[in-house]
Amino acid sequence: MDAQDTPTHVTLDELEDVWPMLPPDDRVTGFRLLAREDAEDFFLRLDGEDQLQLILAAPVGQRRFWMRLLEPDDAADVVQAADEDQRAELLALLDERVREEVRVLMAYAEDDAGGLMSTRFVRVRPDMTVDEAIRYLRKQAREKVETLSYTYVLDAHQRLLGVVSFRQLFQATGDKHVADVMVKDLVTVPEEMDQEEVGRVFAQHDLVAVPVLDGEGRMKGIVTIDDIVDVVEEEATEDIQKLGGMQALEAPYLQVGLWEMVKKRAGWLTVLMLGQMLTASVMGHFADRIATAVVLALFVPLVISCGGNSGSQASTLVIRALALGELRLKDWRRVLWREMQAGLALGLILGVIGVGRILALPPDLEASALVRTLDVALVVGVSVSGVVLWGATMGAMLPLLLHRAGFDPASASAPFVATLVDVTGLMIYFSVATAILSGAMG
Amino acid sequence: MDAQDTPTHVTLDELEDVWPMLPPDDRVTGFRLLAREDAEDFFLRLDGEDQLQLILAAPVGQRRFWMRLLEPDDAADVVQAADEDQRAELLALLDERVREEVRVLMAYAEDDAGGLMSTRFVRVRPDMTVDEAIRYLRKQAREKVETLSYTYVLDAHQRLLGVVSFRQLFQATGDKHVADVMVKDLVTVPEEMDQEEVGRVFAQHDLVAVPVLDGEGRMKGIVTIDDIVDVVEEEATEDIQKLGGMQALEAPYLQVGLWEMVKKRAGWLTVLMLGQMLTASVMGHFADRIATAVVLALFVPLVISCGGNSGSQASTLVIRALALGELRLKDWRRVLWREMQAGLALGLILGVIGVGRILALPPDLEASALVRTLDVALVVGVSVSGVVLWGATMGAMLPLLLHRAGFDPASASAPFVATLVDVTGLMIYFSVATAILSGAMG
Repeated sequence: MDAQDTPTHVTLDELEDVWPMLPPDDRVTGFRLLAREDAEDFFLRLDGEDQLQLILAAPVGQRRFWMRLLEPDDAADVVQAADEDQRAELLALLDERVREEVRVLMAYAEDDAGGLMSTRFVRVRPDMTVDEAIRYLRKQAREKVETLSYTYVLDAHQRLLGVVSFRQLFQATGDKHVADVMVKDLVTVPEEMDQEEVGRVFAQHDLVAVPVLDGEGRMKGIVTIDDIVDVVEEEATEDIQKLGGMQALEAPYLQVGLWEMVKKRAGWLTVLMLGQMLTASVMGHFADRIATAVVLALFVPLVISCGGNSGSQASTLVIRALALGELRLKDWRRVLWREMQAGLALGLILGVIGVGRILALPPDLEASALVRTLDVALVVGVSVSGVVLWGATMGAMLPLLLHRAGFDPASASAPFVATLVDVTGLMIYFSVATAILSGAMG
Repeated sequence: MDAQDTPTHVTLDELEDVWPMLPPDDRVTGFRLLAREDAEDFFLRLDGEDQLQLILAAPVGQRRFWMRLLEPDDAADVVQAADEDQRAELLALLDERVREEVRVLMAYAEDDAGGLMSTRFVRVRPDMTVDEAIRYLRKQAREKVETLSYTYVLDAHQRLLGVVSFRQLFQATGDKHVADVMVKDLVTVPEEMDQEEVGRVFAQHDLVAVPVLDGEGRMKGIVTIDDIVDVVEEEATEDIQKLGGMQALEAPYLQVGLWEMVKKRAGWLTVLMLGQMLTASVMGHFADRIATAVVLALFVPLVISCGGNSGSQASTLVIRALALGELRLKDWRRVLWREMQAGLALGLILGVIGVGRILALPPDLEASALVRTLDVALVVGVSVSGVVLWGATMGAMLPLLLHRAGFDPASASAPFVATLVDVTGLMIYFSVATAILSGAMG
């Protein structure tokens, strides 16, 4: 961290390019090779976890400098990223006033509006004139504030009365009062609102900043849109990883420890495997039928995977639509109807292709001299149609059911839906086979 | 669209809540029920597609009003959303100056920096004094501009020399020159940069706005962070839908036509089913072995799905890490090594659980008096371990290979990886079975 004594070997851009891929030790080394002013810039762009790593790696005498470089909300992130026993020490590095702000911010959960907000917004009183307000703003601008684009109008009890955009202030005649220029009808969020929800509020109202209020209507801070970009990205990553059939990782892929990653993945894999044990039971139930017509076994993977794939598509669509607010629980009838139609169409298409493919190029049926190719093609075709329809319906309903039961719909991942559909798909397949072949063989 | 003549039945918030779920006709009706000033607000919040719908639904005499309400970049979106033969008519509704701006913007692809940018940024000359600049800004603020936070310093040829934040201008003494206050070292993007890439630039540098330059360094516009939130969300949705094994939809779930949706899903389902036909061939190859030990058939779905699930996890992780820029092609060795370790650990865990589960509660083995439960448990345990290791390795490498070959890595969806792993998984399973059971039965 003492960039002044060492020669500069690395530029800001070079380090930024490789940073996400560097192991912790190399990060510290790389950071020390930056020129001093680059180092400050670079440090401020990092997230709380990374900043903490660098602060702890710095000589004790320099830690105070780095901590004090941070805005209160960022300092709060750093302290919260630290282990319990290091927190007091880190807080002690801050000056009195900032320490208080950090303590306030730390009282919020990291992923609700309070944890996301900055307390450094610009404020004026309603009875100021526009000229006074601009002068007062100019004074506030000298301290670090999050944005100058919006000025919030608070009464003596910190209650939010309205907002005036910089542009409005700038264009108004100087002797008007703030109260006459301000907009009173404004979008706010409560301090305990979940960050995903806050993200939706931003999207819906096309906002750049939103004030955060407590239960009594007092203004506690603002959330600005640059924080929301991170939230949107973070939530999408979480959903995507759940959709892949695992718990969400909490850090970039190459940064997560091997054991940590195995833990996040083993749970779901085990659950899914135990679920798949049911397929062995179902097949055991039809073992006699397989023994007399081994050819049936050949198409088991094909038939059940068609159901799984169709289910995976449907669940993915519904999960994402729920996350984006395009869909709600009460729409379940429309979704069901849609997926039954789409599933039927898809099932018929695949069924016909399946029949055609088997008739055109019969797979190795030698083990089944008892059964004619046409019968097999028919069994596969009908089963595929049924399984695809069933997969689409189940895949679409499952996330809605999970959501209804209070779980995260994203847990209805492709592998989870596939496992459920596999078990029922086998039942469909062997029932169809029994019906068609009993006739053929009887 | 003539809200003045009809009684107001619906508020802005009410309509906003139900909007994504309304069919087109009900949207037009709902929109007409808004109070006039609410209608304008509401209209401006919609995306280009929706705005176009409403404009086309409006009486001819009112279309001009709605088109002229739009900023040039939004008007360009509306025109681009329209059919070829409606475009001239829509353009004709704009006034001369805006029409020119719209034509310029339409020359860009919708999803690159040029298509995303606004041409309404505030600009000053380097030799102006700070006082002159602020006065000049105040004049520009009266027209509609995208943001006042940053002022761009251009030379006579529109080449970008530097940027000065509003805050810097505001704090500087009035007689300094802009050139002395401005920052020269700034992040820019070329006009043809893809929007996903632009999103990454924003994230990496924590930006609020970024200037867009042409090949000669002339400034064409700015992209602001509020557009980027939409981009991030859009790109995540696209990736998620591809990961679910289908083409990305271009509209909200309930808005896409049924046939359109079937088309987007049928392609991949067909390809996957044709791929799964290979499993039938592989199983046909081992039909004799199945005929002598039907019990082997019972565990086929279990074994191959373990491989598919493990592959789905690995591919999801790698695809998201690539999308977030946490991973690059050249890291493939590290990824391979990681997934081989994780796959081995996961394989061993699942293998042991599989053996234990079969020994504790043997499934219905009546069809296979020839084979002892212990042997079956061993075959399943060893195969599961191998298949999980193989799935993790393949799942991780496939997106990297696709990326290398110039395809979108997100195409390596869970269903796609599962299909590939199924075929090889069957080979592993029957090879292990042959090796272990030949000894047991010989």
